[in-house]
Amino acid sequence: MSRYWGEDPILMIPGPSELHPRIRDVLTSRFYPHYGPEWRQIYTEIEENVKKIFKTRNEVIIMPAPGCLGLELGIVNVANRGDKIVALTNGFFGDRFVEIASYCGAEVLTLSAPAGYVVSPETLKECLDRNPDARALIVVQNESAAGVLNPIHEYLAIAKKRGLFTVVDAVSSFGGADLDVDGWGIDVCVGYPNKCLSGIPGALPVSISREVWERVERGQVSPMSWFTNLRVWRWYRENWSSAGHPYPTTVNTYAYLALKKGVEVALEEGLEKRYERHRRMAAALRAAVKAMRLGLVSKNESYASPTITAIEVPEKLRDKIGQLVDMMLNKYRIMISRGIGATENNAIRIGHMGLTASPRYLLPTVAALVDALNYLSGEGRSVGEAVEAFHKELGY
Amino acid sequence: MSRYWGEDPILMIPGPSELHPRIRDVLTSRFYPHYGPEWRQIYTEIEENVKKIFKTRNEVIIMPAPGCLGLELGIVNVANRGDKIVALTNGFFGDRFVEIASYCGAEVLTLSAPAGYVVSPETLKECLDRNPDARALIVVQNESAAGVLNPIHEYLAIAKKRGLFTVVDAVSSFGGADLDVDGWGIDVCVGYPNKCLSGIPGALPVSISREVWERVERGQVSPMSWFTNLRVWRWYRENWSSAGHPYPTTVNTYAYLALKKGVEVALEEGLEKRYERHRRMAAALRAAVKAMRLGLVSKNESYASPTITAIEVPEKLRDKIGQLVDMMLNKYRIMISRGIGATENNAIRIGHMGLTASPRYLLPTVAALVDALNYLSGEGRSVGEAVEAFHKELGY
Repeated sequence: MSRYWGEDPILMIPGPSELHPRIRDVLTSRFYPHYGPEWRQIYTEIEENVKKIFKTRNEVIIMPAPGCLGLELGIVNVANRGDKIVALTNGFFGDRFVEIASYCGAEVLTLSAPAGYVVSPETLKECLDRNPDARALIVVQNESAAGVLNPIHEYLAIAKKRGLFTVVDAVSSFGGADLDVDGWGIDVCVGYPNKCLSGIPGALPVSISREVWERVERGQVSPMSWFTNLRVWRWYRENWSSAGHPYPTTVNTYAYLALKKGVEVALEEGLEKRYERHRRMAAALRAAVKAMRLGLVSKNESYASPTITAIEVPEKLRDKIGQLVDMMLNKYRIMISRGIGATENNAIRIGHMGLTASPRYLLPTVAALVDALNYLSGEGRSVGEAVEAFHKELGY
Repeated sequence: MSRYWGEDPILMIPGPSELHPRIRDVLTSRFYPHYGPEWRQIYTEIEENVKKIFKTRNEVIIMPAPGCLGLELGIVNVANRGDKIVALTNGFFGDRFVEIASYCGAEVLTLSAPAGYVVSPETLKECLDRNPDARALIVVQNESAAGVLNPIHEYLAIAKKRGLFTVVDAVSSFGGADLDVDGWGIDVCVGYPNKCLSGIPGALPVSISREVWERVERGQVSPMSWFTNLRVWRWYRENWSSAGHPYPTTVNTYAYLALKKGVEVALEEGLEKRYERHRRMAAALRAAVKAMRLGLVSKNESYASPTITAIEVPEKLRDKIGQLVDMMLNKYRIMISRGIGATENNAIRIGHMGLTASPRYLLPTVAALVDALNYLSGEGRSVGEAVEAFHKELGY
C-alpha cells in the first residue's frame, strides 16, 4: 500500500484482534489449491484439532464464510419455516441471531435482558413449559455488545432436557472462554478464527451433532438454500473427501492454514491455562477501569466477559464517544470500539482476545484511555492508579 | 509447514490459478480490520475499480463468500419460491447452477447441450415463447467442465427483450474474457478473485442492477435467508458505509486487498489486451494439443474457452486419467485436472488464467503432458512438434 497513516494501530476492538506472528508466517507459505493430495493431509488435521477446542466428538465442518452464515446454517438445518425457535438475547448479537432466524422463516420467541444483564434460566424454563412445541434454542455465548458471558450451560441443560435442538454462537469466545459442546449438549456450535484465535477471517469452524445430521439425512428439514444445506455438505464429504475437497465450494486456503496455526498455538498453551489467562486479564482491566472511576456495562462481575470489556462512558462524555475512539486511534494508534446496539451511545468496548489478552497490549490501552479521558473531560484521572490496580489484580 | 513435497507445483488447474507476485506481496501488509476510517478509503476503491471489469455503472457488492453463494444471492433476489427460472447448461457448473436454483425453491426449466456444444439461441427463444411467465434466465459464461465459452450476449439479448431478469456466473472468465454487464443486460453478475485475476478466494465481486435493488426494496422478493438477502445488504450499505463497513458481516481484508491488487494489475495491462492474450494463449495450446493428435472437448473452436482447455483423452488411456494427473503433479510438479461431471472420465483440463496465460507456464505444461502421455501410452508423440505448433500459432 502506498498510503502511510502512521504507526500500525493495535487492534483492541472486539475483533478482529491482533494477528498472531506465527499465523502471519503462514501467509507467506505457498498458495495451496483447495484440493489435491497435499491439501487433503493438511485439511484433515484442521478438522481434528478444531474438535479439541469445541470439546466434541461431533463432526466439524469448516465453512469459507463469515460467522452469521454459520448461524444461518445452524438455524435452517434444525428448524423448518414456521417452526418455533426460542431465542435468548441481551444485546446486538443476540438480536441479530433473532433477526437471522426470522429471515429464515422461523417463528421466534425472544426472551430479552437489558444490556449488562442475563436472561434468567428460570425465565427460559417457564417459556419452554408454555411452549412445548418449541423446536430449538438459539443463544450467543459471549455478548460482545455488553461484554457479558452468558451462562449458556444452564440454558442448554434446560433446553436439552426438553429435547430442543440447540444452536450456539461462540464467535467472540471461541478459544478464549470454556466451551464444552458434548458436555453441555450443543447441536450446532459456531466458532471463529479471528477473535480469540488471533487469526484471519474466512475459515469458520462449525460443529454439528449426530442428531442434526440424521434429521437432515431423513429429509426432516428442507432449507431453501444450497450452500447452507447440510445435505449438500454431506454429499461432498462423502464423495469428494478422497480428493481433499470435503466441502461444496472453493475455500481460501490461507484462511484455513491460519485457523490451523491458531488452533495449534491455543492447544500448545493449553486450553484451561488459556481461558484462565483471559479471565485474569479481563479482571485486571476491570480493576483499572474501576480505578478510573468508570463503570462496567456488565452489572454482575460473575458474568463479565473474559474476552471483551464494555465500559460505561460517564453521562457528560457521551456526546464525545466518537472523539474518544478517534483519539485513541489517531493519537495513540490503538483501535477500540464504541458500543453497538443499546450500548452504542453510552459505552466503549475493548477486546482482549488471544494475543492481546496480555499486559503488553492492555497496559498501553489503559494508559492511553486515561490520557484521552482526561483530555476530553478536563478531569485528572491518574494513570498510575489505573496501572497499579491492574497490577494488583494480577498479584504483581 | 514442516512437510516438504518437493518443488512447489504450478497451478494449471481450472482455478485457483497461480498467485500473482504482486498479490502475494499484499499478504505481507499489515492486517486491516474490516472497518474504520483507513479501511473505508481502501474498500471504496475496490468497488469502483471492479466496476471497470464488469463494464457497469451498476452498484457492486463484494461478498466474503465463495462463488456459489453469489449465484444463490442472485437467484433468491430475483425469483421467489415457485417462480419459473430458465437455465442453460452444458456442463457441471451449469448443472450446479440448476441445482442451486432448485434448492432455493425455483421451478427450473433446463435447456441442455452435451459437453462441448452450446445451447442454440433458437432453443432459448422457443422456450421463452412457450413460457411467457419465466421470471429469470441463469447461465454460466465459461463452462469450465468442457472448456466452452458460451455466447451469453446472444442469450441475454433474447432474455432482456422479453423482460426476464438475468443472472450470470462469470466465475471462470472474470478478468480473462470480455464481459459487458451494461451492454449485454446482466442483472446479477458474479465475478471471481482467484481464477483469471490470479488472486485468493474470499472476496467475491457481484454486480446488481437497479431493477433488482428496486424489486428488493419494494418487497417483491422474499429470500428465506439473511446473508443472501439484498435488503440486509442495502441496510448496511446505507447505515454503516460511513464506518467503512458497507456489508453485513466481517470480511477477510487480505482477500479484499488481493482482489484490489488483482484488479489493478488487470486494468494496468488493459482489458482488451488482456482478453486478447488469453485468446492467443488458448489458441496456441489448442494447436499444441492437435499436434499431439488429441481432440478437444469443445466441438466448435469459435466457442473454445480462452481460459480453460478441456482435452479429450484417447479411449485407450481413459482408465489412466488419474495416473496421468498424478504423474503431472508428482513428476513435473504441474497440477492439472481431470474432467468433471460428463467429462470426468474422458478428459483432462488445463487452466490458463491471468498469470498462467503465458508461454512460461504453458510450455512446461505442454512438454510434460507429451512426456506423460508417451510414458502411459507407449506411443511416441513429439514434444518438438507440439512446441512448434504452439509457437507457430503465436506467430513466433
